[in-house]
This record gives sequence, structure tokens and C-alpha cells, in this order.
Amino acid sequence: MNKQMTCGTSSISFQNPVFVQSCASVVSRKEGEGPLGAYFDTICEDPMFGTDTWEAAESTLQKQAALLAIKKNGLTCSDIQLLFAGDLLAQTSASSFGTADLKIPFYGLFGACSTMGESLSLGSMCIDGGYGKYILCATSSHFASAEKEFRFPLSYANQRPLSAHWTVTGSGAFLVGEKESHVRISGLTVGKIVDYGLKDSQNMGACMAPAACSTIVQNLKDFGRKPEEYDQIITGDLGYIGQQILLDLLEKEGYQAGKNHKDCGILMYDQKTQDTHAGGSGCGCSASVLAGYILPKLACGDWKRVLFVPTGALMSKVSFYEGNSVPGIAQGVVLEWEEGEVEQT
Amino acid sequence: MNKQMTCGTSSISFQNPVFVQSCASVVSRKEGEGPLGAYFDTICEDPMFGTDTWEAAESTLQKQAALLAIKKNGLTCSDIQLLFAGDLLAQTSASSFGTADLKIPFYGLFGACSTMGESLSLGSMCIDGGYGKYILCATSSHFASAEKEFRFPLSYANQRPLSAHWTVTGSGAFLVGEKESHVRISGLTVGKIVDYGLKDSQNMGACMAPAACSTIVQNLKDFGRKPEEYDQIITGDLGYIGQQILLDLLEKEGYQAGKNHKDCGILMYDQKTQDTHAGGSGCGCSASVLAGYILPKLACGDWKRVLFVPTGALMSKVSFYEGNSVPGIAQGVVLEWEEGEVEQT
Repeated sequence: MNKQMTCGTSSISFQNPVFVQSCASVVSRKEGEGPLGAYFDTICEDPMFGTDTWEAAESTLQKQAALLAIKKNGLTCSDIQLLFAGDLLAQTSASSFGTADLKIPFYGLFGACSTMGESLSLGSMCIDGGYGKYILCATSSHFASAEKEFRFPLSYANQRPLSAHWTVTGSGAFLVGEKESHVRISGLTVGKIVDYGLKDSQNMGACMAPAACSTIVQNLKDFGRKPEEYDQIITGDLGYIGQQILLDLLEKEGYQAGKNHKDCGILMYDQKTQDTHAGGSGCGCSASVLAGYILPKLACGDWKRVLFVPTGALMSKVSFYEGNSVPGIAQGVVLEWEEGEVEQT
Repeated sequence: MNKQMTCGTSSISFQNPVFVQSCASVVSRKEGEGPLGAYFDTICEDPMFGTDTWEAAESTLQKQAALLAIKKNGLTCSDIQLLFAGDLLAQTSASSFGTADLKIPFYGLFGACSTMGESLSLGSMCIDGGYGKYILCATSSHFASAEKEFRFPLSYANQRPLSAHWTVTGSGAFLVGEKESHVRISGLTVGKIVDYGLKDSQNMGACMAPAACSTIVQNLKDFGRKPEEYDQIITGDLGYIGQQILLDLLEKEGYQAGKNHKDCGILMYDQKTQDTHAGGSGCGCSASVLAGYILPKLACGDWKRVLFVPTGALMSKVSFYEGNSVPGIAQGVVLEWEEGEVEQT
């Protein structure tokens, strides 16, 4: 496939080296108690992260992840040419306040829970395009700030349907650059908005699954690959319900992906003991799982090639109250193990 | 200056051809009655744009602008490789619903009222980087959906302070590509978040002026230019108050820019007769003025080089209620007249 996207394709294959230089994950107690607890860099027991508001807590955890990713590579903020960041809050305010102090040239993004894919994609394009040496890509979410933004006051203690997700309190930050490491970003597939007309914002897995299917199928076609040519195809936060729908939709398209499909929302919590119903969600879900769990698996060669597909449900309080559907979007990033003697990511 | 950003710089000079292929502006009645009324492509007298809600109205006007820009270039949606779009609403829902039907691979953006600069910057980087032939960049805002999002119910008929802005009901859409036209995008300066600690969300000009100053000064330093080497330096929506603060701040930095500074928010309305106080604002303000007024001036050679600097005030209802400051950001795009026999933009 050519580097350039042409009619009918939505993918880019990078011609220049694009590598993950370092990454960091920050989560809170519930995520630390889950099956992936041992993998995260920082587990903050205090859900307020030492602040007075849920929003400031989210800003703080995003900033912690960003600073840790920079520090791990032995750099300071002034070494970073560009920052791509986003979150779920209205006007992406967790990022505006989280990264404001860093004084890095900044582009704000919104792709709902797919934002980590968007951020990594744009960061990678900028490295491939020669626009910088080090580019930082980050997203975050916080259970309480998300409940406040989209659903009910926590003190109302509402019953959550079994199809509902639990927003991850977490952040992942990634420094991408041209210096060789064990994890190469080799290509991407840009998502299209897919709207099946579903209106149940408490069943986001179903709303997002068609978009995940669209992006995965497009990726397989554009790169001429079969699902088994990926060691793992890992979606963002489809959860148990969305995963089943995705596998059904892929089968209708002629693809069997059940054996090598994982979902960050499923990986994050123990459904039986953590009361998280359909699974984890939020921009911070796929971001922290990528930084904490997926990248190390690639860095050590356990997995050779992964298609990372964060998924987003495009909705707001207002769009929900006005009776709109919940369109989905999914962004695909191809990550590959780089063999040889290079500095460990 | 090199193409690549290096430490201490925040600008990119494009090495490959990047041109505006076509553009379109859609506004409503109040904008049509203003000083620039004759310049816009479409003036829709119905502020609802034939829909039932303010949000759907904004989605519709953004889509109209996007489709018109594509049509002007004799293309269809399937010819477009990428769409960068954003707006002011929570979770950028005007864009998600406005552009959903277009089925173009999509990245959602949020940079408050600076989003048109962010969108054009990323679109241009993608053309320069060779990621597509045609990329669409669009933003929108709507007076009523913005008042609902950020301020008071319209029926409350609140008094607006004289420092308040009037959100433009409008959209601008731009098709960028490599085919030569009379308007070249030659470079850009990525904005940093600047926070002077101001908390008055009804005086956004003051909140954004320091960011505008930061981006303009950075641009002048990075490109080694004096203000007078731009025929015009045109900010997004500083308005009358923000303009004065910007000129004062620039003077402190040693730059006299009063003679060739314009502001889209000032250009949009007649302050004396249209009751718009400090000036126009919103993502659609700089977008529609760029499409309707600035680009034609460049295309005919009246202006040879323009620094376009949309400005954004990063805030949400929640950040305001929680007593946070209103940080600003400004994105710079360098537009140049291209001499010679080329197809008219």
C-alpha cells in the first residue's frame, strides 16, 4: 500500500521510522484492584488526586502521566515539539487544565473514547512527516467526572443497567519519535462515523461495535491482511456486549476474529467481583491499558503485530436529551515489535 | 527556517505545495446584515436552518458549508481523504452530527474559537506530509446553541455586559490540497496555552489576548519577520477589548502591529447598530470571515501575505462554576498570494 491515502482507502503506511519512545500509565484504586493492577506505573489510592474537584483530579492524573512519559525518556517539557491530548469532558477541559502548565505547543482533540487512537495517529503522522523529534500523545478519563458530565450525581446512587460501562479513572501518555525502540507504529486507519441509529447511551458497546467493525474491515482491506496476521486486535471499550456484536458483524463480513480479539474494557476489571457490568470505558481505558499492558507485550516480542482500535460513542447530554442516536467512531493504529538491539521502551 | 520544529520554535514551514482548493461560508441573518454580508456564499434567514433544535441547526449549517466547498471544486465526498472538524458544543456534537452523513474519515478537534486554525493547520500538515490529495477542514458555531451551552436561556433575556461577545451563527469549510491555486498555505505556528489567571468568561477578549500575543510573537521570531512583512495579521475573535490588549502586549514585546491588525470578530458586525458589544466570536466567526472575506482578498492579490490567528478561550460551564481561570490559545496559519496563471480559488 502507498503511503498516501487514495479513494476508497482510509489507511496510511508510514515510510519513515515512527517509534514509541516511552509511555506511562496512571490509574486509581479500582483499576489497581483489577486484573491489570500490577502493570500500571502509578496507582493513586486517592480518587481526588489531592485536589478539590473531580475535574481537577482528572487534570492532575493526565498531567502525571504526561510528565512521567517525558521523564522516562530523560527529557523535559521543552524538548517536546507538540502535544495532542483530549478527554471526555465538555470542551475537553481536563486536557486544557491538565496540560496547560506544560507549555508545549498544543492541539486539543475530541473523539470520545477513541481519542487515544486519534492522538497517537496524529502524533505518528507528525513524526513521519518530519514535524518534530518528540511528540506527546495523551488522554484521560475519570469515573466521577464522567458520571457528572453524562449521567447522574454520584450521591443519587442510581441503579446501573447491566449493559452500562464503568468509566476508567486513568490516563495513558506516549512519547513518539523517530529513534528506534522495540515498538514501531507502522500505520493507521482513520475511522469514519458509523450510526446504526441506536439511542441507548447506557449500552455504548452496541453503539460503538459497528464503527469498530468498519475500521477493522477497512484496515484489513487496505493492508491486504487477514485477522490472523495480527497477534491481537484490541478494541478500546466495547465491553462484553459490544465484543459479541463486533464478532458477529465481522463474521457477516467474512472474518473470523474471535481467537485474537481482546478489548481493553474487558481486560481492565474483573466483572464478577468489581461490579463493573459491561466493562471499562473512557479515553483513559484504552490509553492506560495500551501503556501498561499492550506495549510491554510488544516490547518483549510476546506479540509481534497488534491492531489497536479505540472506540468512541459520540454523544453529549444535550444530544441524548434531544433524542438523537449515538454514532460511533473507531481509530486504528498498527503497532509492531521491532527486533534487534535497541533501547528498551 | 527548517521544516522541522526544533527546541524553542513552534512553527513549521511547508516544503511541499499546500493550497486552498476551494472554500465556502454559510451564515445566518444577523451576519448577513453586517458589514461583510455581501461576501458570504449562503445567508440563511431561518436561524433554525429548517431543523427543530439549535444544535441540529448548527450541524446543518456546518454540513452545508462542507458540501459547498466540496462542490465548488467539482468533487464529491468520496474524493476527500480526511476531514478535520470541530465546534464549541460539549463533545463537539455539532460536528459529529453535522459531518456524520459525509462518510469521510474523520478526526474531531477542540480548540474553542481557535479550532479553525487547528483544523487548517492539521489539514495542511497532512497535505505537506503526503497523506491525501484533498482534505476538508471545517468549523461552526451558532449563537443560540452557544448561549445554551455556556450562558443563559435565551428566553431569560439577560443583560449582556459590554465586554461580552456575540457568537457568530456561521461556518467556514476549506478544501486543502496540493494543486496550485492563488492561495498558498506556507506555514504555521502551533499555539501554547497561556493563562493570565483571568476568570471573567464574559470578557473573553481579555482572556485570549495574551495567547494571541504569544503565537504572533513566536511566529515573527520563528520566521524572522517583522509585523509589517504581513499585509494583515488577523486574529479570530479578540473583539475591541482584546484587540487593544493585544496591541499593548505586542508593544511591550517591541512590536508595532496596530496598522495591519484586523480581527474577524470586529469585522463581522457593526457595533453601533447591531448590539454586538465587544464583537463576534465562535469557531464560525474566524472560519466564515476567512472563507468569505480574507481568502478572496488573497486570491486577487490585494493582500500578499496574511497571518491568520484564530483565538480560543478554554472554558466550560463546569470550569467556570468551579472558579477556574479561562486560559487562552491561538493557532497561527500563514497564507500567501500565489502569483501566476492558476485556477481561481
